[in-house]
Amino acid sequence: MKKNKVEVCFSPATYDSFKNRDAVVVIVDILRATSAICTAFMNGVKKIIPVGTLEEAKAYKEKGYMVAAERDGIVRDFADFGNSPYNFTKERVQGREIVYSTTNGTNSIMIAAESYRVVIGAYLNISALVKYISGEGRDLLILCAGWKNKFNLEDSLFAGALANRVLNDNRFYTICDSTMASMDLWNIAKNDMKAYIGKTAQRHRLKKNNLDDVIDYCHTSDLTDIIPVLQDDILMAMKTEDGC
Amino acid sequence: MKKNKVEVCFSPATYDSFKNRDAVVVIVDILRATSAICTAFMNGVKKIIPVGTLEEAKAYKEKGYMVAAERDGIVRDFADFGNSPYNFTKERVQGREIVYSTTNGTNSIMIAAESYRVVIGAYLNISALVKYISGEGRDLLILCAGWKNKFNLEDSLFAGALANRVLNDNRFYTICDSTMASMDLWNIAKNDMKAYIGKTAQRHRLKKNNLDDVIDYCHTSDLTDIIPVLQDDILMAMKTEDGC
Repeated sequence: MKKNKVEVCFSPATYDSFKNRDAVVVIVDILRATSAICTAFMNGVKKIIPVGTLEEAKAYKEKGYMVAAERDGIVRDFADFGNSPYNFTKERVQGREIVYSTTNGTNSIMIAAESYRVVIGAYLNISALVKYISGEGRDLLILCAGWKNKFNLEDSLFAGALANRVLNDNRFYTICDSTMASMDLWNIAKNDMKAYIGKTAQRHRLKKNNLDDVIDYCHTSDLTDIIPVLQDDILMAMKTEDGC
Repeated sequence: MKKNKVEVCFSPATYDSFKNRDAVVVIVDILRATSAICTAFMNGVKKIIPVGTLEEAKAYKEKGYMVAAERDGIVRDFADFGNSPYNFTKERVQGREIVYSTTNGTNSIMIAAESYRVVIGAYLNISALVKYISGEGRDLLILCAGWKNKFNLEDSLFAGALANRVLNDNRFYTICDSTMASMDLWNIAKNDMKAYIGKTAQRHRLKKNNLDDVIDYCHTSDLTDIIPVLQDDILMAMKTEDGC
């Protein structure tokens, strides 16, 4: 039986060493971009257009688009809102197209665009992801957005949680050190995530800006079965039942 | 009291995000380059000239230098020997100058060259390192050579062991996620390093080439108090007593 490998890439800066055109790539930026994107689709957003630079985001704004744009957690003045999942309410986003630019998340989405499939991962849709990945029967690469090319704990913990569940299916295997490390870290953290996340650098950054109200929410599992998927450089909703 | 920060960089590919000209940078490539370099100095080598490419190493060989050169664990045919610490015996290296090129280690040494000081770290000299770092009273950056720009477990575990000891001195602090992760991994592994290292990718690579005889040796603490230090692009011996 052909088995599929599971790998975890801790930083977009090391993506070239993991690049795998045949893989499903799951983008992870738990605090807060990928949690916010899952929330937006849960609340009926039609499309999300990820853009790398603030200049591009601003140009879209000038053309009349609704724009979410932040750097270092702070909403940019030209934007409609920033990176908090709480911004992406049904009232605001249902049926809309949103342009989205974040410090770490959107770059990670774009560098992986040539893979077989790029999907957005968060605790909010983790069980749907596991089901989808298992159904594809392809290699899995979990790409952590990190923080300005550095490793971060919250994305790595999610990578460990996801890898752990995918590897329960014996059609998958790993010989990847970062996958093993992330699963070991997940095993330390899982029984008291709040305490563990309390020591991360990102929690301190968010707290400093009074933005840490989203931490519990971003660590809540299975609020949706929608998987945002990149199609022609635009994120669209895919439901696991679709098989896609 | 001014405190100094401790950071761990898991891959040379992310070094730019950690670059700190005022820091002491410890280069780590436990299996096997930095363990081999410490062994060479323990056995009286005079100088080690790290070079990045095999072409440079070959050119030195043609000029009559003794050359250690490997790629993917395998000795190159023009070289005198490869990457095993067992090659660097007293009989072979005492009083000699050696040119050294390895898959991951030498590149990491060279990218950090503009820092305040670049030193070579391994379990073999870990207590001397702790003493030296404490004496300097500067920021510490532990740079893991990894494997072809990927994270690896054996270097990260050493980073955790070293960070843990340095942070016992309350003049040092960390808010760095990769430092916390490496200390957590070290805490899991430390009571049975052999079992933990058994699951790493590098152990499998070495075993495949019958090169895994060095694993126990490379995880032995404090065989020497010599710290190899980079001076004008050449590695020289520094003893902790020197204060440097």
